[in-house]
Amino acid sequence: MALGEFDLIRRFFERPARRALLGIGDDCALIAPPPRQSALAITTDMLVCDRHFLADAPPRSIGHKALAVNLSDLAAMGASPVGFTLALALPSVDEAWLEGFSAGLFALADSSGCELLGGDTTRGPLTISITAIGEVAPGLALRRDAARAGDDVWVTGELGGAAFAVREALAGRPLAIGHPARQRMEWPQPRLAQGLALRAIARAAIDVSDGLLADLAHICERSALGAELDWPAVPVDPALAALPEPERRALALGGGDDYELLFTAPDSARAAIEALQSSGALRLTRIGRMSGQSGVRVRDAQGRVVDTGRGGFDHFA
Amino acid sequence: MALGEFDLIRRFFERPARRALLGIGDDCALIAPPPRQSALAITTDMLVCDRHFLADAPPRSIGHKALAVNLSDLAAMGASPVGFTLALALPSVDEAWLEGFSAGLFALADSSGCELLGGDTTRGPLTISITAIGEVAPGLALRRDAARAGDDVWVTGELGGAAFAVREALAGRPLAIGHPARQRMEWPQPRLAQGLALRAIARAAIDVSDGLLADLAHICERSALGAELDWPAVPVDPALAALPEPERRALALGGGDDYELLFTAPDSARAAIEALQSSGALRLTRIGRMSGQSGVRVRDAQGRVVDTGRGGFDHFA
Repeated sequence: MALGEFDLIRRFFERPARRALLGIGDDCALIAPPPRQSALAITTDMLVCDRHFLADAPPRSIGHKALAVNLSDLAAMGASPVGFTLALALPSVDEAWLEGFSAGLFALADSSGCELLGGDTTRGPLTISITAIGEVAPGLALRRDAARAGDDVWVTGELGGAAFAVREALAGRPLAIGHPARQRMEWPQPRLAQGLALRAIARAAIDVSDGLLADLAHICERSALGAELDWPAVPVDPALAALPEPERRALALGGGDDYELLFTAPDSARAAIEALQSSGALRLTRIGRMSGQSGVRVRDAQGRVVDTGRGGFDHFA
Repeated sequence: MALGEFDLIRRFFERPARRALLGIGDDCALIAPPPRQSALAITTDMLVCDRHFLADAPPRSIGHKALAVNLSDLAAMGASPVGFTLALALPSVDEAWLEGFSAGLFALADSSGCELLGGDTTRGPLTISITAIGEVAPGLALRRDAARAGDDVWVTGELGGAAFAVREALAGRPLAIGHPARQRMEWPQPRLAQGLALRAIARAAIDVSDGLLADLAHICERSALGAELDWPAVPVDPALAALPEPERRALALGGGDDYELLFTAPDSARAAIEALQSSGALRLTRIGRMSGQSGVRVRDAQGRVVDTGRGGFDHFA
């Protein structure tokens, strides 16, 4: 017998409330407000099958990724996770798929202290929408509009790996399971610890989901500034090492989905940022500088401006 | 030239933040926490095209309904609205559709004091997911598990109209635009004022989205009780007046989507509930009683138990 809607929720998603005053199973969930000095940070990301993940991706990785991309937005704000809601449209009840999906979702929820508060399930084309809620003191939040001219531009980790894996999969040459670039595509790691540590150090931040150039352009636009990017300094994913230079550049500057943090900080913060790097496993690389002149310019090793075409992902382009 | 993702957001959805500390355009929205005594109420509902609304429904009504069903959950909790996020998958950018959709959405958002905080747009099968946030003092929240044996069972408004309009549309006999039952299907009215007023009077509450019997069964299950329903007392939508009795009963007891409030209250609250009724235009009708014996029994005018079959909507049944 096929599982009904309520049995499905009970079997795969209902767990005892922990931090929530009232969890799954009522008209709303209830959570206590954060401490007086804190604001609530709220973000929503929707994932559509064959657009944000491949239909045959491991269901565990889909559950992980659906939450990870939302936690990445909390990280980019410097917020610590509180809880999330899940809306899930499913073409049918596939118990093995749900088993994997919920395992991947809860593994990340548990390790990041982010509780499932409630949600909705319905029949429809496979679509996952998550709203994550976090808390952050408003004065410490890493806003996109807070960059200043002369700020250094920094990025965590390495770029281009996820876009390379997407490109290979779409070309019918999927990377082997376990290949580091495929891991980056299927198992993005939200940089929550870095986001929290950067609250007292960085000025503006964003997560790299649309692509380095496009996301830097978002900071520029909101801060009414421009930026100069030093291409040789950009930390390119080692999986791209064998590719010709133009392909490496297109993937590292234009490819999205790496979910690293891109942030700006005054040059007086360099020592603090280097200390942060030496305390963690994740690289932090200075890749450019904010400027008063609008637009993002990329320079090569000789200081010449590189033509980067249009970069970044637009779902309706 | 087709609108891109960011232009689309700017044109149809971005408005200056009012209550929010930081609105659309960053990684997260920021809102100030509610007063110390209050909890946050959070709910999510996803609407899929041709399942929750017809593809040719007026886009204004789709925008209205997507928010209304979420506000109805806040109402059923006794929470007052604060804000919401919107995730929207669109097969293509149809500017006329977006114009209508956003007008319907914002008309209800404005009239209910619920601000759009942020969201996500992507290409995909038409799907709308909204998460609404409200505030309520935890001790006053209308929980499903708070009913007691002997409580009266009440409902606001009238039932069966929306289900009748859905039935006629699916049978290829759509009701005329402006027909009251079609209005009920396309323009559900969240009972926010009633939910707030009932906080000090009612015990348990739920909104009627799955159908009267199914939603009463949810209260019974969470409260570990049963209920007796007096069928002749159930306020049936006048649009059903000409239908044979079994059809009226099936629509009024089993049909969902009316978004009325179903609530329980001690009999000592009758005078307060009647006073509430006389102060508003909306009927409040006593239709039964909670009992210690599990299950929901419906009785006819002679007190005989009526066989109601299975009632209520299950998306995977």
